[in-house]
Amino acid sequence: MGSLKSHISAETVGKVITCKAAVAYAAEQPLVVEEIRVDPPQRMEVRIRVLFTSICHTDLSAWQGQNEAQRMYPRILGHEASGLVESVGEGVRELEIGDHVVPIFNGECGECDYCRSEKTNLCEKYRVNPFRGTMVHDGKCRFSTKDGKPIYHFLNTSTFSEYTVLDSACLVKIDQNAPLRTMTLLSCGVSTGLGAAWNTADVQSGESVAVFGLGAVGLAVVEGARTRGASRIIGVDINPEKRIKGEAIGITDFINPKDLDVPVHQKIKDMTGGGVDYSFECAGNLEVLREAFSSTHDGWGLTVILGIHPTPRLLPLHPMELFDGRRIVGSVFGDFKGKSQLPQFAHQCVKGEVKLEEFITHEMPFWKINEALQLLIDGKSLRCLLHL
Amino acid sequence: MGSLKSHISAETVGKVITCKAAVAYAAEQPLVVEEIRVDPPQRMEVRIRVLFTSICHTDLSAWQGQNEAQRMYPRILGHEASGLVESVGEGVRELEIGDHVVPIFNGECGECDYCRSEKTNLCEKYRVNPFRGTMVHDGKCRFSTKDGKPIYHFLNTSTFSEYTVLDSACLVKIDQNAPLRTMTLLSCGVSTGLGAAWNTADVQSGESVAVFGLGAVGLAVVEGARTRGASRIIGVDINPEKRIKGEAIGITDFINPKDLDVPVHQKIKDMTGGGVDYSFECAGNLEVLREAFSSTHDGWGLTVILGIHPTPRLLPLHPMELFDGRRIVGSVFGDFKGKSQLPQFAHQCVKGEVKLEEFITHEMPFWKINEALQLLIDGKSLRCLLHL
Ligand SMILES: NC(=O)c1ccc[n+]([C@@H]2O[C@H](COP(=O)([O-])OP(=O)(O)OC[C@H]3O[C@@H](n4cnc5c(N)ncnc54)[C@H](O)[C@@H]3O)[C@@H](O)[C@H]2O)c1
Ligand SMILES: NC(=O)c1ccc[n+]([C@@H]2O[C@H](COP(=O)([O-])OP(=O)(O)OC[C@H]3O[C@@H](n4cnc5c(N)ncnc54)[C@H](O)[C@@H]3O)[C@@H](O)[C@H]2O)c1
Ligand SMILES: [Zn+2]
Ligand SMILES: [Zn+2]
Ligand SMILES: [Zn+2]
Ligand SMILES: [Zn+2]
Repeated sequence: MGSLKSHISAETVGKVITCKAAVAYAAEQPLVVEEIRVDPPQRMEVRIRVLFTSICHTDLSAWQGQNEAQRMYPRILGHEASGLVESVGEGVRELEIGDHVVPIFNGECGECDYCRSEKTNLCEKYRVNPFRGTMVHDGKCRFSTKDGKPIYHFLNTSTFSEYTVLDSACLVKIDQNAPLRTMTLLSCGVSTGLGAAWNTADVQSGESVAVFGLGAVGLAVVEGARTRGASRIIGVDINPEKRIKGEAIGITDFINPKDLDVPVHQKIKDMTGGGVDYSFECAGNLEVLREAFSSTHDGWGLTVILGIHPTPRLLPLHPMELFDGRRIVGSVFGDFKGKSQLPQFAHQCVKGEVKLEEFITHEMPFWKINEALQLLIDGKSLRCLLHL
Repeated sequence: MGSLKSHISAETVGKVITCKAAVAYAAEQPLVVEEIRVDPPQRMEVRIRVLFTSICHTDLSAWQGQNEAQRMYPRILGHEASGLVESVGEGVRELEIGDHVVPIFNGECGECDYCRSEKTNLCEKYRVNPFRGTMVHDGKCRFSTKDGKPIYHFLNTSTFSEYTVLDSACLVKIDQNAPLRTMTLLSCGVSTGLGAAWNTADVQSGESVAVFGLGAVGLAVVEGARTRGASRIIGVDINPEKRIKGEAIGITDFINPKDLDVPVHQKIKDMTGGGVDYSFECAGNLEVLREAFSSTHDGWGLTVILGIHPTPRLLPLHPMELFDGRRIVGSVFGDFKGKSQLPQFAHQCVKGEVKLEEFITHEMPFWKINEALQLLIDGKSLRCLLHL
């Protein structure tokens, strides 16, 4: 795959680059694909040439500007991508120009107490922070509009741009032989869902699972449960079209809550003799979360929250409900430590242990990004791959 | 200890017994110590002669009748006790007359899916159920007043009586050489607290702990953390007198929230460089629960709820807070499987690995039970041992 090197040029190294990006100027307004400037990387930073990017529901939520802190404009969204290292900043040792990389919104410095603990994948410095819009190093932006106005960063990544600057802690080096096109999915959705089944829940052969929300994240949970040998994988979605993909990936049963005259948890309890071993909330909705919690078996059921909940409403649980032995945890990036664990995960994907192709439902050129966004809003796509 | 046998008589076996009990007739009214009738045990049941009983905060809450379902009268409260088997019902194999026993409010049938699972100590049939006031076998009461009115049972045990009938699943046989006086504590408070540190949290040497509420349960958590080699054990209580017992058992720091001008969690974070590894809520108060949750270290902190929360209010947590890696679980009876694990735990206590004597702050004859209740209400006692 040496040919990919033609995508970068030695002439831009260390200089300001002018390139195309999709800029968000206001909530729910079409992204504006226009020329912007990208500064060279600072200390411990890396600038990459983005080759592929896709849209996750978290981008969609940010674009919708659901809470005050999300509304920083102008901003470059996007966090699922793959590309090549174009310039490296001072002090960066483990990455060099031309390396194949996948950005991670939940970075790993490798040195802090958190990175050294086996119990968490939240780095002290580079953990995901939806409210940070600037670089960690100097609190400034590396992007600017053509008239010099700073453009905010998003989730440590901002991949809706031909070039972007990231902390080296937020880039994973991928084997040159792995196809970058599918590796894009490891950047967020697929790693998050598979990791939730493998790392957070640690689903075992013969156990039962219910997945609420069959977008890319939910279906990646399904794939994670399938590869672990789960005996029963119940997919729940209000969009009936999700059944087809769900079955292709591995659900054993599909429930459309709209077709039921009992609550979903009641149906799941009846189907499984008391509830599933694990439920996963991948819809970002508190009512769904409540159903997911009630769908697990008392005594040992575990609910994993993956959906992002921008609402100010609190958890709809009574403290005494935890005395029935049901547990509930949140999972960021599927509890993967990105830099340490993704290379091995990528290897498993390349070997075909994990289905990736199923998650790419559409592909189009980058400038059609608003069309891609609409596909996700309409529930038509899992991941639409944008080619830059 | 064969001499204890004189406390039971072969003449009562299988017959209705008339004896003294402390009966609750209305919320917050003094218990009435009077003669009642106790039927012989039915299939899989056992009648015991109670020798010692003590009062746990859960008895106090029930006595206060804080929620509708608790208000069933007349009722015999009490669930911490020790005694001797007086009669065994049909089908009971592992217990015989004269055995030394400790009642457990959270029974273990040993045969259901839950009992056979390693993940829970909640038996399908005999788990703790504060709302059940009758025997599992036939839904009837074994107690009646002298004029024949049924008296409700409480928490599978009803130990505020000279004789009580329990399911054999709710009785643990204790070695004849163990002193029943201190074994009483294993019936609830001490097992619950120690078990929460050992089984639920699985505290490791060098880890840090904060315990909110230094009653018998909280102090048993302290003892559990101490025996595991915790490096820091912070005790939190609004009653300044609790510092003394706390230090005797093993707290390294005491915090009285009333003495602070910052929230407790802020203080604990400052003291520990970011928060404790584990916090335990042993006060039964939602504001305290919130502080306990916020006192743990992000990334890996675990909050264990032990307190009973009779309020209809929901958990004061936002779903996104779980994305900081803090976890929260409930723990019933310290996650001990009573019948399987308590004999070994009793053995450890007898060998002196666990301090028990510290928990007995008062002793008096059974008929002074209302005085003992008042001591607990006033925060003067940990456990007041009543001699029958
Ligand atoms: N925790 C993390 O690290 C992490 C990472 C990526 C994405 N996310 C979040 O995960 C969620 C899913 O992301 P995605 O990209 O798969 O989104 P998506 O939009 O592709 O999928 C969401 C699915 O939920 C379904 N849904 C909506 N309401 C529902 C309801 N009431 N009942 C059942 N199903 C319902 C939709 O039909 C859709 O199929 C989002 O909230 C996203 O922000 C979290
Ligand atoms: N989960 C279980 O299996 C289980 C078993 C036994 C008891 N419990 C519950 O555990 C709790 C403790 O029981 P106990 O017998 O030790 O009770 P207790 O009354 O002896 O102790 C409670 C302690 O909490 C302190 N406290 C009250 N409000 C406080 C506040 N705002 N901040 C800090 N401290 C405060 C009191 O001063 C007291 O020292 C009760 O809610 C009881 O019902 C649960
Ligand atoms: Zn994402
Ligand atoms: Zn780190
Ligand atoms: Zn108790
Ligand atoms: Zn059982």
